[in-house]
Amino acid sequence: MNQVLLTDLYQITMAYSYWKNEIHDNHATFHLFYRRAPFGESAAIVAGVCPALDYLENLEFTDNELAYLTSLTGKDNKPLFEADFLNHLKTMEWKLDVEAIPEGNLALPNEPILRVSGPILQCQLVETALLNMINFQTLVATKAARICTAAKGDDVMEFGLRRAQGPDGAISASRAAYIGGCMATSNVLAGYKYGIPVKGTHAHSWVMSFEDEQEAFEAYAKALPNNVILLVDTYDTIEGVKKAVQVAKKLNEQGHDLLGIRLDSGDLAELSIKARKILDEAGMQNAKIVASNDLDEYSIEKLKAKGAKIDVWGIGTKLVTSYDQPALGGVYKLGAIENDHGNILPKVKLSNGPIKVSNPGTLQVARITSDKQIIEDIIYDEIHGIHANLKNKEFKNLLHPALRKGARVLLEEELSVVRNRAIQQWQMYKKQETPTPVTLDPYVAEVKAQLIEANR
Amino acid sequence: MNQVLLTDLYQITMAYSYWKNEIHDNHATFHLFYRRAPFGESAAIVAGVCPALDYLENLEFTDNELAYLTSLTGKDNKPLFEADFLNHLKTMEWKLDVEAIPEGNLALPNEPILRVSGPILQCQLVETALLNMINFQTLVATKAARICTAAKGDDVMEFGLRRAQGPDGAISASRAAYIGGCMATSNVLAGYKYGIPVKGTHAHSWVMSFEDEQEAFEAYAKALPNNVILLVDTYDTIEGVKKAVQVAKKLNEQGHDLLGIRLDSGDLAELSIKARKILDEAGMQNAKIVASNDLDEYSIEKLKAKGAKIDVWGIGTKLVTSYDQPALGGVYKLGAIENDHGNILPKVKLSNGPIKVSNPGTLQVARITSDKQIIEDIIYDEIHGIHANLKNKEFKNLLHPALRKGARVLLEEELSVVRNRAIQQWQMYKKQETPTPVTLDPYVAEVKAQLIEANR
Repeated sequence: MNQVLLTDLYQITMAYSYWKNEIHDNHATFHLFYRRAPFGESAAIVAGVCPALDYLENLEFTDNELAYLTSLTGKDNKPLFEADFLNHLKTMEWKLDVEAIPEGNLALPNEPILRVSGPILQCQLVETALLNMINFQTLVATKAARICTAAKGDDVMEFGLRRAQGPDGAISASRAAYIGGCMATSNVLAGYKYGIPVKGTHAHSWVMSFEDEQEAFEAYAKALPNNVILLVDTYDTIEGVKKAVQVAKKLNEQGHDLLGIRLDSGDLAELSIKARKILDEAGMQNAKIVASNDLDEYSIEKLKAKGAKIDVWGIGTKLVTSYDQPALGGVYKLGAIENDHGNILPKVKLSNGPIKVSNPGTLQVARITSDKQIIEDIIYDEIHGIHANLKNKEFKNLLHPALRKGARVLLEEELSVVRNRAIQQWQMYKKQETPTPVTLDPYVAEVKAQLIEANR
Repeated sequence: MNQVLLTDLYQITMAYSYWKNEIHDNHATFHLFYRRAPFGESAAIVAGVCPALDYLENLEFTDNELAYLTSLTGKDNKPLFEADFLNHLKTMEWKLDVEAIPEGNLALPNEPILRVSGPILQCQLVETALLNMINFQTLVATKAARICTAAKGDDVMEFGLRRAQGPDGAISASRAAYIGGCMATSNVLAGYKYGIPVKGTHAHSWVMSFEDEQEAFEAYAKALPNNVILLVDTYDTIEGVKKAVQVAKKLNEQGHDLLGIRLDSGDLAELSIKARKILDEAGMQNAKIVASNDLDEYSIEKLKAKGAKIDVWGIGTKLVTSYDQPALGGVYKLGAIENDHGNILPKVKLSNGPIKVSNPGTLQVARITSDKQIIEDIIYDEIHGIHANLKNKEFKNLLHPALRKGARVLLEEELSVVRNRAIQQWQMYKKQETPTPVTLDPYVAEVKAQLIEANR
């Protein structure tokens, strides 16, 4: 879908101003990165890159968008943009080159997740949408990984659609949560769009729509005899479990098994322990206990510490809205620009605090790993090469070619492949005792120091 | 756009189970409401209703969606759904009737924002998407109203696209923020889609792409002489203000004015006071000071208390993600259902805490207002009428007919009309010293008590 207007107005007024000053085709390089990892972590799982590349591949100012831009007026009630500029937007060739860290990899603070190069007008127009897509999905993938870590190998399902921030807030979250390690989503549209496994049980309203709970359970078992997970807490949880056992016995007589029960309220530790005992005493050791109700990594840890007998975790609101930190503060900063004389100049964004000074150049990340850990990441200038002494250690470049002159070159992977990579890297990261150092290559560090000096 | 799969899988498995049990056409009534107002308020501004009605009007299971549902398998690797059921989804006539509180009105706790009636299969399928749309937009409209209250009549602009929860998380937020009182958005696509005014300044990257700041300001002023707001904090804020004044003087010579400056870092109170002084001393009393940088109602109040000279507030992350409460816990509960004998039975959802017990019936809200305040809201059963003694007070029904047999009957209003209603009602609410009481009509209270007794 063409989302060329998914941008801040100031990107278009800046584009216009570049054009009016005849510097719109000057070649620029921007880096998209975050400064501080979310949730007190020292790494984040990259997600949102493929949707971002889809967006970049499909950019086009059609007559509809141009008619809208023509209608915009400024303070003087005159048109904000000249017709010739709008015609330029319509006819220009999209020339962006993008390097990206493939989804499911760990990105550490200050490492470019995307590097975008091309005419500065085009680099600028896409800033906001790229930040939107990468910030949110990277945040949720990382949140999901934390929740899966707390669940210690138990299945985690994402159930958040009803409380997510808009339809796409939900669909993007389902995608990112799957990348981060969830095994399924309740969101059917996310399943349809991305091939994510979809799962679900039933709601309280199913039980309420019958005269009594037992009747409701039996009706559900009749309809879906091979896929029965019963929500047992509509009236009284323990009574509900006992009724579920009765239904399970009837299912057994017909050659089917009760897959499990779901608890959605009350003291989940206590109730799950009691429910497990009832199920086990009825010979239903294989029936799973699913739990939901505003859960997150913190409540999962507490429940596990209390000995809760929960096999599957259904996580909604706290995951899809990333409740304890609902935004990742990723930024998009100019690294280099061609001046009027055709020279490429490295650039830094100064700031009051040194943590906020950006890194200059055309940046790449060299990752040095062993079997068991990420030993070091070095941010270096790809044009000038690595100046650090690698002591014969092998490294891999994190950023891969993703877009060339606006056309996709980074192939889309199966989401399950991305997910496996994320799970493996997150587990490796969690085993490390100290955070991986991210160092600036000496060449970049020297250029940065010079620029800071010159600008002050 | 058809979003028929924007639902939890369990809605479709329940639909299937209703169909297998031949009760899918039983007439049901559901209410969508919230229990506790967000941010410690006692009211929320209704938003998201028109997008929800758009969604309901366009529901259709096309061959693509049905092919996907056909592909889903259960635990036994057999198809989850019978072909006849999927054919029913394809051929059924959508018959939902919806009553809704028009957007921009205040909804108080437990008051139905939507009442959805029709075949239980259809009521159930739409639950999740309706909650998604109403929960999020109502939350953000209310957050925006709080921020505008803190800004005490100053203009508030929404700048949140880059940190919002996905593309639509941003677009929905822009729409809701405008309803709640913001005067513009930076999000061009939201402007295009909803006619919301779009505004913006320029970014640090504009300044960085020039050899020096003065040159950058002059180039911007050259391009947009009637619309110059300069971001002055790329290197040193006060120096930036002084350079902006130089640019303004040149603009004046050409018959144009500097509209203002923007501050995006540092101590905004201190810097705005200094900047105001510099501007005033240069005779630029009309130049506005725009401020941004992770602001919300709390920081606005603090800045005002410190005497900050800020005229326009640019609010991003904290507004569009509703940072301090990123989800509204709205629910969708069965109020009444037809049994096998064709009788309509009122229903309650029991729970451990009395606050969570839902209200039975086919509910409507009578609002009694004076010129200056909402005196009382009475939740009553529309079929059985109001039993409360109104003492000749006039009331209005809050819920209006919105959808009949799947077709829209509530006309879409201009968003600016909705916004004016919201602003006026929020101001009225803010002047009230005590929260408006929400009472249950005696008839509903009696039915509820009987149902609780019978179910326990």
